Parts: sequence; structure tokens; C-alpha cells
Amino acid sequence: MAMLGPRVWFSVRQGLSRGLSRNVGGWASGEGRKVDIAGIYPAVTTPFTATAEVDYGKLEENLHKLGNIPFRGFLVQGSNGEFPFLSSSERLEVVSRARQAIPKDKLLLAGAGCESTQATVEMTVSMAQVGADAALVVTPSYYRGQMSSAALIHHYTKVADLSPIPVVLYSVPANTGLDLPVDTAVILSQHPNIVGIKDSGGDVTRIGLMVHKTRRQDFQVLAGSAGFLLASYAVGAVGGVCALANVLGAQVCQLERLCLTGQWEEAQKLQLRLIEPNTAVTRRFGISGLKKTMDWFGYYGGPCRAPLQELSPAEEEALHLAFTSNGWL
Amino acid sequence: MAMLGPRVWFSVRQGLSRGLSRNVGGWASGEGRKVDIAGIYPAVTTPFTATAEVDYGKLEENLHKLGNIPFRGFLVQGSNGEFPFLSSSERLEVVSRARQAIPKDKLLLAGAGCESTQATVEMTVSMAQVGADAALVVTPSYYRGQMSSAALIHHYTKVADLSPIPVVLYSVPANTGLDLPVDTAVILSQHPNIVGIKDSGGDVTRIGLMVHKTRRQDFQVLAGSAGFLLASYAVGAVGGVCALANVLGAQVCQLERLCLTGQWEEAQKLQLRLIEPNTAVTRRFGISGLKKTMDWFGYYGGPCRAPLQELSPAEEEALHLAFTSNGWL
Amino acid sequence: MAMLGPRVWFSVRQGLSRGLSRNVGGWASGEGRKVDIAGIYPAVTTPFTATAEVDYGKLEENLHKLGNIPFRGFLVQGSNGEFPFLSSSERLEVVSRARQAIPKDKLLLAGAGCESTQATVEMTVSMAQVGADAALVVTPSYYRGQMSSAALIHHYTKVADLSPIPVVLYSVPANTGLDLPVDTAVILSQHPNIVGIKDSGGDVTRIGLMVHKTRRQDFQVLAGSAGFLLASYAVGAVGGVCALANVLGAQVCQLERLCLTGQWEEAQKLQLRLIEPNTAVTRRFGISGLKKTMDWFGYYGGPCRAPLQELSPAEEEALHLAFTSNGWL
Amino acid sequence: MAMLGPRVWFSVRQGLSRGLSRNVGGWASGEGRKVDIAGIYPAVTTPFTATAEVDYGKLEENLHKLGNIPFRGFLVQGSNGEFPFLSSSERLEVVSRARQAIPKDKLLLAGAGCESTQATVEMTVSMAQVGADAALVVTPSYYRGQMSSAALIHHYTKVADLSPIPVVLYSVPANTGLDLPVDTAVILSQHPNIVGIKDSGGDVTRIGLMVHKTRRQDFQVLAGSAGFLLASYAVGAVGGVCALANVLGAQVCQLERLCLTGQWEEAQKLQLRLIEPNTAVTRRFGISGLKKTMDWFGYYGGPCRAPLQELSPAEEEALHLAFTSNGWL
Repeated sequence: MAMLGPRVWFSVRQGLSRGLSRNVGGWASGEGRKVDIAGIYPAVTTPFTATAEVDYGKLEENLHKLGNIPFRGFLVQGSNGEFPFLSSSERLEVVSRARQAIPKDKLLLAGAGCESTQATVEMTVSMAQVGADAALVVTPSYYRGQMSSAALIHHYTKVADLSPIPVVLYSVPANTGLDLPVDTAVILSQHPNIVGIKDSGGDVTRIGLMVHKTRRQDFQVLAGSAGFLLASYAVGAVGGVCALANVLGAQVCQLERLCLTGQWEEAQKLQLRLIEPNTAVTRRFGISGLKKTMDWFGYYGGPCRAPLQELSPAEEEALHLAFTSNGWL
Repeated sequence: MAMLGPRVWFSVRQGLSRGLSRNVGGWASGEGRKVDIAGIYPAVTTPFTATAEVDYGKLEENLHKLGNIPFRGFLVQGSNGEFPFLSSSERLEVVSRARQAIPKDKLLLAGAGCESTQATVEMTVSMAQVGADAALVVTPSYYRGQMSSAALIHHYTKVADLSPIPVVLYSVPANTGLDLPVDTAVILSQHPNIVGIKDSGGDVTRIGLMVHKTRRQDFQVLAGSAGFLLASYAVGAVGGVCALANVLGAQVCQLERLCLTGQWEEAQKLQLRLIEPNTAVTRRFGISGLKKTMDWFGYYGGPCRAPLQELSPAEEEALHLAFTSNGWL
Repeated sequence: MAMLGPRVWFSVRQGLSRGLSRNVGGWASGEGRKVDIAGIYPAVTTPFTATAEVDYGKLEENLHKLGNIPFRGFLVQGSNGEFPFLSSSERLEVVSRARQAIPKDKLLLAGAGCESTQATVEMTVSMAQVGADAALVVTPSYYRGQMSSAALIHHYTKVADLSPIPVVLYSVPANTGLDLPVDTAVILSQHPNIVGIKDSGGDVTRIGLMVHKTRRQDFQVLAGSAGFLLASYAVGAVGGVCALANVLGAQVCQLERLCLTGQWEEAQKLQLRLIEPNTAVTRRFGISGLKKTMDWFGYYGGPCRAPLQELSPAEEEALHLAFTSNGWL
Repeated sequence: MAMLGPRVWFSVRQGLSRGLSRNVGGWASGEGRKVDIAGIYPAVTTPFTATAEVDYGKLEENLHKLGNIPFRGFLVQGSNGEFPFLSSSERLEVVSRARQAIPKDKLLLAGAGCESTQATVEMTVSMAQVGADAALVVTPSYYRGQMSSAALIHHYTKVADLSPIPVVLYSVPANTGLDLPVDTAVILSQHPNIVGIKDSGGDVTRIGLMVHKTRRQDFQVLAGSAGFLLASYAVGAVGGVCALANVLGAQVCQLERLCLTGQWEEAQKLQLRLIEPNTAVTRRFGISGLKKTMDWFGYYGGPCRAPLQELSPAEEEALHLAFTSNGWL
């Protein structure tokens, strides 16, 4: 699909005046109440064939297998979805297929971030058209030296103004080299179409501070990784978007339930067994590690697009150990 | 006091064969059980006169005032004690005076880290002689590029071998630019005279991982700051050493109690109100901010030694706001 | 323009067997001699209209004005060309227009980097088709944690294998958070279709080391910014690709000539007067600063695409001072 | 030696009114002309015996061997002198012995930095008393988060006010995690007792900018390492203080001469052969690598104090290769 031209850009503005009529499951927009995004989401991977084409069939199979786990919804096209490696049309087709494959009552978050504000708006609009319930918008980062608070506020405000679906902020410094400043997030939390943040930095002091400073807003904080999920709940986060939930989805949801029901001792035991596997499929071995693990757990992992590389045998062994030594394999 | 000469160095080795006979309060060493350091400690400041002399009288006054708070003990000569600004004799005199000023059943942790292994050993021995119950040993950092895991293991093993008192590891990357690697800490946790770590980095995934990987050791993890205290308890830490406890000591101890008794909702409410004040007296305004706040709370803060500077009026106002906006002033 | 499909991908491979027949000016490929890219290049900006459309007419006007300066050629779609903000079709159209607008004997370098290897290959092929003489390929960076030497070698080798035009490596850590390792660059320098590197990191020890370790290869190092141009020449670099050359192009070329003719004292005087202006239009005020300066110097600067912001009056004043205090305005 | 008490502190102030009468070699102070520190200095190591005592005899032997090389002088107690591992009395004894061992017409720079302003003043005064010609004062760094420009200006001004000998600023971010800001250095350059800076960061843009912005001051910039010595001369530095000069001192002085006489091609050839050996004895293998190399070159290297470790056989081999592959062994 080509980039949207000027005509679409303007029709989007008009479309906004119609109001947002889509209701999914138990959430509703309008009347000043923002949608409720609380819960656990796997950060779904994008399957590729041996020749590096997107394998939409395998995507659907994975999503069907994940469908029985009590997730709140699914994130497609997050960092684990290799979105920077997909064309615009592939990005939209992934969202469209995911919408068909997942249960109607599950939220579909779609990563819609691009470097420019205009492209992000267009992508957000297009993703809404193909069925996304909310857009996850990563901080632009190539010109990070110029991404002042003013620049970020301008960017997100414009996107949220023009997006037909709610916007979730996304701060992931390991990939962007940029942490969305807390004060900036607090200002943005007042926007009626910005509903929360996925914070993948892992600084729980920061997560607590965002919860605290947005307590009078309708704004929800999601942990961006399973390694600090319990700690995030402890300071007021309401969910998590986790790579690990692709393979240990039931366990991550169990951790959620233990936190929500105040069973902190049990929660701690479970959390501690998840840290090493989580680090292994994120920072340590990246998406290649996550996909290899998916193969082990009965999902389709398959190859990554280049330049991401397959694991070496030694890396694969270390990855395996991270799961076996914690009793998961 | 001069550095210990070779004679003292060797007598220390002999002294070790006598075993460690000191018992403080309810803890005991020997028989393979390490001392229990669980609980809250204020990271005590070093008061100075207007001419930058150590004001031992004010130190004693502060400690007396803090004596009624249910702390597990006191840390003197941590980073908040301006230890790099004190001579060796001042460092020891501070420990000696603190020992006299605090209740007998409170643990006295003394920061004993120096850049060289030999100086750290000597300082640890001397601090034990003047009454410290345990030595907090910061990672050497000037040659951080060469502080491999092997170098750190050698350093801490030597210090712990020769120290008459238990050793607590201390990782504080904001000051040292160095994070003691988890795997290194895990190896060191097996040393019979290394009892725990004060981790001030604030990475709760890391804290959880250390708890998890030392679960078969007798090793305790203390949060190094009040900003992530609840989160640290949630993943298995057993206490905290906190700058903020100099001014909001009762509240930090209350947070501990809420965590220990499983009152997580109340704990969360309290924790969230402590983050901004904590950041203000640590990373944001440093010891100058902490001391200014002590003046407000009825303790003696006073000046820092140069090159630390007094706060500007604007900084002082921002500091004040961090406390008033959270209901503490 | 849509992404190239599989058919184009394979035809590229076939095209490679034909050899590279294009000759531009005095350089020739084949017989094991790589093209000579020595010299100065402005890192051309992309002009936008008030409504953020690419203003191709202004691009041509700027290039015509720059045409009389003794540059070796022009870089379009480098970091200063806001390439992450352009669609694929815009990127190609900019290259196509630039090819028409610049003298035939000038080299046209085109920034062709994308995050995935496949997209980079396709972009490189397309840019060759519309007239680029060489492709500048930035390190992929979103998954920088996984960009091992092996991954980078795989990426650049694939691109260079399939590119009909020579490839120039591009390391720009301020934007990518990633420094192409020297040893990796040295290995890549042996590829017959990799002719050099634009190094924007400013570490002259590293630049010297690359020159030294590729001395037996046909490989050229270009300084990526005017701030360290003299120093780079001093250690064996053969040119520079500079944002500052958009406004002080004659001066940057004069600096080149002074270096090449061994007039180091004069070179030093000139270099020192260029540092502050250079920092102002790069790290300090970014492309917004560069474009504002272009307006002052009789070129078309105009707005940046969002999220890049206009300078505040105070920033504009500081920018102006960087030029006036060095005698350039 | 004990720390100086208040009496000494005040007598220092009185001493300042006497003016600086010491003349060494061809330089003179007074009449507003600062001393000339231009030239090459080895950053002398501190030899230790097998039991980690300072080996003053070996220090003297090394200095005698170095005495025939056309150095401008010697730096003792810089970062390569392991100063953080020495007691105050050892630091002074090293300076005292060095003064006796080196020719009268050579400048003796002594590293006098401590964390506190007061200790730095006292150390500077003491070092002057035992024969140092100038004091090299590293930025305090333990509280780097609070080392604002104001704090650094206060620190250096106080030290320079009270020092009987000229002060040389010292910025070494690899060790301190702190870069002395250019604007701060420019302000400090106006102090009558601050004569220059040793900049070890290697950012030649920064070095050029300092040269440029202090061109109306009597202020000299020295490169802090041999890896960027030529580049530093090219932008106006007047010398270097180099670890590598302990083993390739004649070559570093030859590089100086080539730069000063405008033989830039020859200079480049020599510079390029020095980069790898220089990196090997600094960033890569640290002081352990430097000392090992000294053993190879006929000097006494010997062990470092712990926690610095000996090289492994593999490291030693890589170190050797850095010299052999460049024709130095």
C-alpha cells in the first residue's frame, strides 16, 4: 500500500468530527471515560517463511493457539513484531489478519509509530481502518538529540488529535535510545485520546512516579516486559505487554491474577522464575531467541528478517538453560 | 590516623583465626549462619561546621533523634556520608562516635570502601576496631574499565577474608559508573563473610534476579534507595538503606511494615508519596538537598564540603515543593 | 513507489554479472580499482513547503547555487536530508531530481539505508536506477542490541553483493546509538563493492586506525562532519561529507585545499573558526538550525517535517552568534 | 603524612603573597605571563614490589632511563600512576623522589587531585613543598551528578587561588565519567594560576574549540594520550601527556618534532603506527598492560596494586601483537 496522499490526510480530519463509534468488548469511548486497557498482552512476533516473506498463515495459527489464554488482547507490530523490517502494506496486512484471527472481545493493539508525525498519523488511521482497537506509538528516535519535550508533545498531540482510535504511548529506550520523560507523559496523559503508556525501560521508580502523577487522569501504565511485571503492579501499573507471553502466556496471566488478588508471596515465587527466561528472549538473545523458544513451545517461531541473525549453537544452549533451570522446559 | 603498616596487616590475619566473637542484639555469627541484616537503615549524613570541620556533636544529636525510629540500624560513611571528602581518621572517628550514640541493639554499618584492596582491608579492620558491626564496601571505580568480574571477585574475596566483621557489597552506579554484575554478586554470595548487598541502581529486575540466584545462599538484598523500596520487597529484598530515612524515617519504616504484613495497597499509597521526595534528596539535588531538608525536619543538616555547593533559591523551592506536594511539609 | 517484488530482486543479481559500466567524471570501476570518492560533499537538506510537501523546485535551486563550489559531489538523503521522514517514492524522486540538477562530473551519493537488509538492497538498486553513483548505507539500529559484528557483516555484504553501485559505509552514533566497530569496517573494506566509510562519530583515533588497518585495501575514509575535518585529513582521511558545506561550502573546500597542499597553519586557523558554526548546525540545533542558517546564506532552508521543531527566538540568537562571533555573518 | 591542619591552610594563603619565585629551565612566572608547559611528558607509572610496596628505587631507575629522551618533563601521580591506590604520604614521597631523579631542567607535573576541595588544596601545597613544578588536578567525580559548572569553577578557583604552583586542569572521562565542559574550561583559563589542561577524552573537536576559545588567554592544551596527538597538534594543542611515552618515549617526541616542523606526512605515518600500541596500554589493557610492556622495553613494570589484575596469557599475546604488528617489537 502506498503512503496516504493529501486527500486522505484531510478526510481523516473530517472523520474525527463523526466521533469514535467503535465499541469492543466491555469498553466504550466518549463521555470523558477512556477505554480500559488493563491486562496482559503478548507482543506478537511476525512469522516469516524460509525466503523471508511474511507467513500470514503461521501468524493466524499462532494467534489461534494463543486465543485460549486469558489475555486482555494482543499487540502486533511492537518491537518484537519486527515492524521496522516490514513495508507499510505488510504492516497493515498483519493487523488485518490479526483482527480476523483473534476473538472479538480481545483488544488489538497495533504498533503504528513512524519517524515523522505525518507518517505516524497516516499509519494510525490506516491501522484503525483495518481493525486495530488502539495504536501503540513509539517515540521517534533517529533525531533523538532534537526530541525535546516540546517536540514529543507536538508529535503525540497531533497523532492523538487525528487518530480515530485511542493512542498508547510507547517508551523503549533499549531500541530508541530515548526515554519519554515522565513530565512529558504526564502532560500527554491529559489528552482525551491518549489512554496509557507501555513503558519498557524497567525503571520501577519511574513507573511509580507516572502512576502517581497521573492519578487524577484517566491514564493507565503497562509494564513493557515480564521481568518487572510484579514490581510494576506493586506500584500501580495495571498490566503488561510482554514478549515472554508468546511462550509462557498462561504463566504471565497467572502472575497478573496473583497480583490482582493480593497473593504477593505466590506472585513473587512465580515472578522470580520468569526473570531469566524473560531476559533471554528480550535483551540477551532478542527476537531470534524469542522465535527459537516459540518453536520449542509448539508455536511457529521461524527465522527473523536480516540483519537479525540465527542463534549460534552456544547461544541456543544458553537460551535453553534459561528455561530449563527455572523449570519451564 | 595513618594507614596501617605491614605489621597490622599481618596481625589481622592472625586475628581472624580467633573467630568472630562479637554478638549484637539478636544476631550471631558462626555455625554457618550469617548475620541477619534485614530492615531499614538511614544513610546518615556527616554534619560539618561553618568552617567545614566535622561536627561530631551534631552527628550525635542527629543520631539521638533518629534513635526512637524502629530502624534495624544505621549506615555511616555511605555515599550520603560524604566519605570521599573525609580523611581516614575522620572516617574512623565518625564510626566511633556513632557507635556511642546509637542504641546497643542497633546494627552499625560502616562504609569502608577505598580504591585499593589493601586500603579497603585496612579500613575495614580499623572500622571493626572502633565498633562497626558490618562493613559496606563500594565497588572500586576509578579504573572501571579494568574492573572485570575477576578483579571484583579478587577484591571482595580478599576484603571478606581479612575483615573481622561481615561484608556487605555495595553497587551504586550513579556514583561509580559501574554496576556490580549479578553473576559476580552470586559468586561472592557464597563467601562465608559476605552477607548481602546494598543495590542502589534501582533495576528491580536485577534485584529480583539476585534474590532468585542466591536463594540457596545465606545472602540478603537491601534496596539502596527509598524510591524502589516497595518494589524491592515485592521481589524478595529484605530491607533498605535510604537517604530519605534521615528525614522521613518513620514513614520508611512504616512502608517496611506494610510490606512485611502484606498490606500492599496501603504500601503502594505510601510508596508513591515517597518517590518525588526521595528523588529530590538523591539524584536531583544530592546531599545538599538532603541536608537542607534535614534542617526543615528538625535535624542538623548544615553545609556540605566543597566542591558540593549550596542549593540556589530556585532549587530550594523545587525541593520544598517535592515535599509539600506529597503532604510531607 | 511500491517496494520491489521478488522479480526485481532476482534481476538485480543477474545485472551484477554484467559488471558496473557507469563511469562518472574521472573515476572508473573494474579491474580491481575502486572508484575514488575523495573530496568534499555537502550533506544536502530536503526542502519542504509550508505544508510539508517536498519542494523539488527549491531542491534544484539550492543544488544549482551549490554547483559552482568545487565539491567532489553531493550527498542526498543522508541524516541531514531527513530521510527517515520521507516515503520511498520521495526518497527516489529526490535522488532523481538531484541527478538532473547537479553537474555531470559530480558524484551523487545517495543515502539508501533501511532497517532490513532486503529493503536496503531494494532501495540501493532503485537509487542506482534513478542516477545515484554510490549508496551511503547507514548501520541498521533499531535492534542495536543484536547488531553484532556478524550481523553487520552479513548486512553490508549482502547489500554490496547486490548493489549495482559502490557502497559507502555510514557510522553515525549520534543518530543510531551504534558505532560500526573498526574491525568490522576493516573486514568489509575487502569487499570489491565497498569503497569507503563516512564516519560521523568524531573519534579521530578511530578514524586513524581505520585508515591504518585498511592501508592495503582500496578503501577511503571520509569525515562525517566539518568539526574534525582537518584532524581527519591529518590522519589520512581523504574528504568529508558535511552539513556545514550547505552554507559555508567554499570555506570547507578551502580547508580541504589547505590540507592537501600542506598549509597546516592556515588550515588550523580556518578549522578553528568552523567548529562552533558546525556544532550549531549539527548536534546543538540540528537540521532546524541548519535550515535556518541556509535562509541567512541565500539558500532555501524552510521548515523541517515534524516532529522536528522550529528554533525558539533564543535558540536562533545563539545560532546566529555562533556564526557572527567567528566572522561568518 | 597526616592531612594538613588549619594552620597550614592559612599559611598557604600568606605564602601566596610572596609570589611564585621558582624558575625551572627556560620558563618564568610573573608579569602576567604564565609558565610554558608545551611538550611531551610520560605519564609515569608507580613501581611496586612483589608485596605491593612502592619500589622507590625502581622508580628512580625508570626515571633515569627516561632522562635522555627529549621530554619537556614528567607527570607523576596521573591516572597511570595508580594515585587512587597510594596513601597521601606515598603520593608525596613519589613526587619527592621523582624531583631528585629527574634533570633539573625538566618540569615535574604532579597529580594532586582529591575528591574534596580542601584535600586537593592541601595535596597541592604539599606537592609544591616536595618539588612539584605544577599540579595536575583531575575533576572530582564521585558526586558527578552534582558537579555542575558552578561546582567545578568553585573547586578549581579555590585550588588555584591557594596553590603555590601553577594548576593544570585534567579531564579524563574514561576514569571519572565526567567531561570538564568547554565553557567551564574557558572561564577557568582566565585564572592567573591556571595554565592549561590535559584532555584525555580524545574528542578533537572539543580540543580545537578549547584552543580557539582561549586564544586570547595564556592557556595551553595538552593531549592526554598518544592516540590523538597528531590531530591535537593539528588543531593547536602544544603537547601531550602520554602513557605510551613510558615505552616509546623517543617516538612520541619524534612525532612532536615532526608536527612542530610541519612534516605532516611523516607525522601521519608515525602516528598511525602508534594508535594500536597506545590503545593497548591504555583503554584496552590498562596499567597492567602498560607495565607488562615496560618490562619488554627494558624498564621496570612489575605488578599493579589490587584490584588491578595481571594480564592473562591471551591478553598478553594480544598486547604483544599490538606492538609487533606495528614494528615496535
